[in-house]
Amino acid sequence: MEAKIKTIPLARLSSGDDLTLQVYQFFGNPSGKKVYIQANLHGAEIVGNVVIRQLMSWLQSLDRGQLWGEVWLLPACNPLGMNQRSHFFSSGRYNPYDGKDWNRIFGVEEDGERATFAQKYLNSSQDTIYHAYLDHLKSQLNNAQSFQTSGTSYGVKYGNLLQSLCLDADIVIDLHSSSNEGINYLFTFPKQDESAKAFLLDVGLVVQQPGGYTFDEAFLKPWLSLEETFAQLGRSLNFNLESWTLELGGGMTANPQSVEKGVTGIKNYLAQKGVVNVSDFPLPETKDHHIYLADKSQLKKYYATTGGIIETYPPLRTPVKAGASLYQILEMNKKEHSPQLMTVTAEESGFIFDVGKNQAVNEGEYVLSVLETGDNYDA
Amino acid sequence: MEAKIKTIPLARLSSGDDLTLQVYQFFGNPSGKKVYIQANLHGAEIVGNVVIRQLMSWLQSLDRGQLWGEVWLLPACNPLGMNQRSHFFSSGRYNPYDGKDWNRIFGVEEDGERATFAQKYLNSSQDTIYHAYLDHLKSQLNNAQSFQTSGTSYGVKYGNLLQSLCLDADIVIDLHSSSNEGINYLFTFPKQDESAKAFLLDVGLVVQQPGGYTFDEAFLKPWLSLEETFAQLGRSLNFNLESWTLELGGGMTANPQSVEKGVTGIKNYLAQKGVVNVSDFPLPETKDHHIYLADKSQLKKYYATTGGIIETYPPLRTPVKAGASLYQILEMNKKEHSPQLMTVTAEESGFIFDVGKNQAVNEGEYVLSVLETGDNYDA
Amino acid sequence: MEAKIKTIPLARLSSGDDLTLQVYQFFGNPSGKKVYIQANLHGAEIVGNVVIRQLMSWLQSLDRGQLWGEVWLLPACNPLGMNQRSHFFSSGRYNPYDGKDWNRIFGVEEDGERATFAQKYLNSSQDTIYHAYLDHLKSQLNNAQSFQTSGTSYGVKYGNLLQSLCLDADIVIDLHSSSNEGINYLFTFPKQDESAKAFLLDVGLVVQQPGGYTFDEAFLKPWLSLEETFAQLGRSLNFNLESWTLELGGGMTANPQSVEKGVTGIKNYLAQKGVVNVSDFPLPETKDHHIYLADKSQLKKYYATTGGIIETYPPLRTPVKAGASLYQILEMNKKEHSPQLMTVTAEESGFIFDVGKNQAVNEGEYVLSVLETGDNYDA
Amino acid sequence: MEAKIKTIPLARLSSGDDLTLQVYQFFGNPSGKKVYIQANLHGAEIVGNVVIRQLMSWLQSLDRGQLWGEVWLLPACNPLGMNQRSHFFSSGRYNPYDGKDWNRIFGVEEDGERATFAQKYLNSSQDTIYHAYLDHLKSQLNNAQSFQTSGTSYGVKYGNLLQSLCLDADIVIDLHSSSNEGINYLFTFPKQDESAKAFLLDVGLVVQQPGGYTFDEAFLKPWLSLEETFAQLGRSLNFNLESWTLELGGGMTANPQSVEKGVTGIKNYLAQKGVVNVSDFPLPETKDHHIYLADKSQLKKYYATTGGIIETYPPLRTPVKAGASLYQILEMNKKEHSPQLMTVTAEESGFIFDVGKNQAVNEGEYVLSVLETGDNYDA
Repeated sequence: MEAKIKTIPLARLSSGDDLTLQVYQFFGNPSGKKVYIQANLHGAEIVGNVVIRQLMSWLQSLDRGQLWGEVWLLPACNPLGMNQRSHFFSSGRYNPYDGKDWNRIFGVEEDGERATFAQKYLNSSQDTIYHAYLDHLKSQLNNAQSFQTSGTSYGVKYGNLLQSLCLDADIVIDLHSSSNEGINYLFTFPKQDESAKAFLLDVGLVVQQPGGYTFDEAFLKPWLSLEETFAQLGRSLNFNLESWTLELGGGMTANPQSVEKGVTGIKNYLAQKGVVNVSDFPLPETKDHHIYLADKSQLKKYYATTGGIIETYPPLRTPVKAGASLYQILEMNKKEHSPQLMTVTAEESGFIFDVGKNQAVNEGEYVLSVLETGDNYDA
Repeated sequence: MEAKIKTIPLARLSSGDDLTLQVYQFFGNPSGKKVYIQANLHGAEIVGNVVIRQLMSWLQSLDRGQLWGEVWLLPACNPLGMNQRSHFFSSGRYNPYDGKDWNRIFGVEEDGERATFAQKYLNSSQDTIYHAYLDHLKSQLNNAQSFQTSGTSYGVKYGNLLQSLCLDADIVIDLHSSSNEGINYLFTFPKQDESAKAFLLDVGLVVQQPGGYTFDEAFLKPWLSLEETFAQLGRSLNFNLESWTLELGGGMTANPQSVEKGVTGIKNYLAQKGVVNVSDFPLPETKDHHIYLADKSQLKKYYATTGGIIETYPPLRTPVKAGASLYQILEMNKKEHSPQLMTVTAEESGFIFDVGKNQAVNEGEYVLSVLETGDNYDA
Repeated sequence: MEAKIKTIPLARLSSGDDLTLQVYQFFGNPSGKKVYIQANLHGAEIVGNVVIRQLMSWLQSLDRGQLWGEVWLLPACNPLGMNQRSHFFSSGRYNPYDGKDWNRIFGVEEDGERATFAQKYLNSSQDTIYHAYLDHLKSQLNNAQSFQTSGTSYGVKYGNLLQSLCLDADIVIDLHSSSNEGINYLFTFPKQDESAKAFLLDVGLVVQQPGGYTFDEAFLKPWLSLEETFAQLGRSLNFNLESWTLELGGGMTANPQSVEKGVTGIKNYLAQKGVVNVSDFPLPETKDHHIYLADKSQLKKYYATTGGIIETYPPLRTPVKAGASLYQILEMNKKEHSPQLMTVTAEESGFIFDVGKNQAVNEGEYVLSVLETGDNYDA
Repeated sequence: MEAKIKTIPLARLSSGDDLTLQVYQFFGNPSGKKVYIQANLHGAEIVGNVVIRQLMSWLQSLDRGQLWGEVWLLPACNPLGMNQRSHFFSSGRYNPYDGKDWNRIFGVEEDGERATFAQKYLNSSQDTIYHAYLDHLKSQLNNAQSFQTSGTSYGVKYGNLLQSLCLDADIVIDLHSSSNEGINYLFTFPKQDESAKAFLLDVGLVVQQPGGYTFDEAFLKPWLSLEETFAQLGRSLNFNLESWTLELGGGMTANPQSVEKGVTGIKNYLAQKGVVNVSDFPLPETKDHHIYLADKSQLKKYYATTGGIIETYPPLRTPVKAGASLYQILEMNKKEHSPQLMTVTAEESGFIFDVGKNQAVNEGEYVLSVLETGDNYDA
């Protein structure tokens, strides 16, 4: 099966050159789900492009009859973030033009009309409700786009473009990584615990209260809110949509082990959800796979308590004990004292989740993160 | 009268060098107001340093008896933002480390205990209430500062430090400018209309609903909220606090005319408020001075609808008419067409409030702002 | 007459988007000169694009018969430098990837074979010599381009591409501006004094010893060197090639007065050189026009002798006297002293040629330039 | 033995904060050599600070009698480069203000008076010649520093300051690392082959023709040139000065194995040169240690031949064969084709010396380096 390839204009640059997005669409049986997978929303988080290339080869090797629905793939989904350089570094997390985090630019305005909508459709079929609310979201997104002479800021236009591509999807998977050195894990939402297993990762962070500004939250939140509004009126709905962010290792790199984890996890998940019908997935271990689902608040970031050089970092996944040594910092001074090697201890027990890429830190800069699991977790 | 000068540690850098703040305190009659004036919160907005230097000379020329209260002056209040360079440019609006706007890092958590507090102090004197709530805010600020090994991010520590300096002030004045080319104006809050005149500026933007993250809002908002909470319980309070942001011209520059506007306005305001007793202020014109107070929503930003070179900008304060030509953009292309000069019209009538410093724009980048006054305003 | 428009691939970006150059070629009588004009080599120096657009309109309005030769126009000649942003600033002078000044990446290796070449062609016609040496330069440029798997750095590939476009030109005009605030002037070479008048500018800097790394020098230097080599063998040649850099005002702006100076100057120069045959050019004043040609060494740069805010700059073209006040700097400190306003005097007499765009300076940063003319110059 | 600690002013920043250098001086028997060791000249190359801290502890543990001469240690020798950030990255190789590589700002003007000097001192003792020429270099350095109102650019002032600290040293060691991922090796000069062994590293690059702009070259070059000038007059001199750059692993990191290599190598070298008298150094293996000394021209850099993601890099020190696969790049496009995985082969045999830290590359960006040893080298 070959992909249909669409090139979508994004912005004209001052020089007259254009930035575009290119989406690869695989269409199977039209009555199935729409799966939307994108990569590289943060400029330095490139690993997902390699994952997508491998998924594309896999889908190309399948027959149309093996795909129950459609899969849209969008690698390099943020050309401005990906191509920009400061020395050889890709700008990591934010737009250098305005400082806005590339993954905090989404969402539609909180919807004052949801209660009215629910009242109106209280006795309609779930399918009718879904399509009516989808139309409503589409028109909201279009309104947010200015068609007036005052134009639209790049961030708003870009965010709306990405959202419009996945608005009617059933499943959204956004491929990220740490900006620093990180483990493989996923972000998930409250009702997705059973599905989460299928990615075959061993850690997940649960977003209990989606704020709506990240890409995964922006897709899911309106529907969760709508379900809630109907529930308050005594009508139980389940649109059965799922949203995921996979975090695959570190920034500026495509670690082969992280790529493999991502590719296998997505294939297995798609097979488990019945989107793809292949002989080798889902893997038998899926059912009994254990994923540790932590609350986001369990993730503790450590910031440098003085400026200097982090001399010794523990490796990723190292267990840490409350009160035990966590890292050492070489503090220098301009006060005619010798440099000093200081030890910083852990506040709570857990394991090393992420470590900074730059071992030189000014006071208050990021050092590492501990996932605070308590003492009983076996990392 | 000489200032008491205090140097306050801010952060140790990785090299062992230190960044500090230096505050100049003039103390007069202790029973008066505390006025807090800072400059250069955004890295490129340097004009306020020159204003402060001139205010300092002025205060030095006064007797202690002429000052009813105290004035704290903090020039160069953001050394990290001010010293950092990309080519010769000061990093403008955000911390290059994390992209956070330097003037969106303030505020204390919305306070769940305010209702309980109001109930408890319902019949206390306003003075007792003020001091009790001030203690409460202080402890909140201290809690926000982590004294644990996980440290505090630079932005949080820095924001708290600035807030702690002005927490018990009666009047806060934050000196800014446009990052681009801007007019002289001020930001004000609902109950300050009469006081606003004293700055002798002709335009003000009113923040109707303080969000609490900017410096001026972070100072005022808790007290406005407390007044409201008491009002709901039938008790009318007025803490009589005022918060101002003065915007004095453009970025990376200290325009002499803007400096003069700022210095005269602040002297006049301090005399008008009875903080300073001098023969030449307040100026007689203060009483009849007209300031046009606009709602923030009247400020319309224009973004480039294509990439190119802005060929013709209207100068600051030029009146614009809805539908009339606003600016022209030279659009280039890489599609074998000739470059094209396109005219963009104004959506609403008003006047030119701010224009971009970089006439090369990618699509979606900022071009200029119009303050939409309708057709009857006389700019 | 319409232009032939050619789009030339420059580089594929990591996202799969492409950067290209677009050259506009006007062809008249083939026996005339080839004129090559480019703009925006430094990212922030955008004014030349507007000049080129106006020249293009002018050439379009002419008949083919009025053009004696051909004119190539290359606006936006450095898309990477022009589109890159740090906050809203275009990266000014250097490639943010490697720090190399965009106008120091040109030139071919000093040519060990020139003596042999001259010996061989000692008695050939100048035309034969020209074409033989042109072939030689072309092959050198091709050799510099690696066609091996180790590739070529962006800077080398890009530099060679621009050079290859103008290698066989008779006249090269490179349109620049100051990165800061600058006057309108030109760079010229020793034998061009008479021609220099035709641009109708009043100041020029003469490059006595072309180093060969800037664009204008890279074009001219091999031919000057060849003329010298033949001269040493007793043969006098004059290839009659001219190379110019026009500096038109300040960075990130297209000052209308600078645009007009540039457009008029180039039209007048092309008419004067017989490339274009129009009724209104050359202007009658050309012949008696006076241009002050200064040696590059007369340009004295002033660097901040301490950190602070430049409070008062003299405007461009202000005459300065040795020993008289030049600018004032507000020095702050963290040593518990009051801020201090210091006056810096001029070392030599002359006039203000260029002033920094950022009035905040760390010690050792650029403040302004004086063209040291001595006391008798009438600015 | 305790260090004498000196804090040296470097520059006042615009905010009034100061940058300084802090040098640690250990003084033993005054008739020995002066050794000067600095670290972190490039902002991201932090490893040497940790090496210096360990050397400092070691020297503190020695008696004054064990040190034959003096050792000066300057960690964090470039505070501006080290503290500056773009996202969390230290600015790597160049000053973001002007793009100048921090290790290309040294050197004194080529000396027209060397021949005259040599003539004058032709029959003096080597010691007399050394001190006379040292005075000459000092005065040159002082002249380069402007004491006029036009000031000195930061780069010139800073470069001169570092040079002045080591001008009279016998041995200079500059601690660097790759900006990317690199092996441990050293830079050396023609007459130092025997000494080079003592660092116990297995690869060295020999600078045959010092250009004079890097720190190590700037120290040594004037003396090598003077020896040559005297040699041409028939007088053989050997000032017996040595200059080294140690490259210890990758950027933004202090790899413990690289730190250990650096510390052991320097201790061993100092013992071997008779500067330090300790029981455990020099190590017995020093004499037979083999270091592969390659010419700098053997180092081949590979640049991306298209934009994309480097999917597979070979690890450091992997042997490569001419014509065999070297790396693979995932090329994307915006022309409606599938992404493509391309294999790039090696031009010559050798081994992997350095690999890029950012696997996303625009066309022409750096990918990796091969040290071309031919087929017989055993990496």
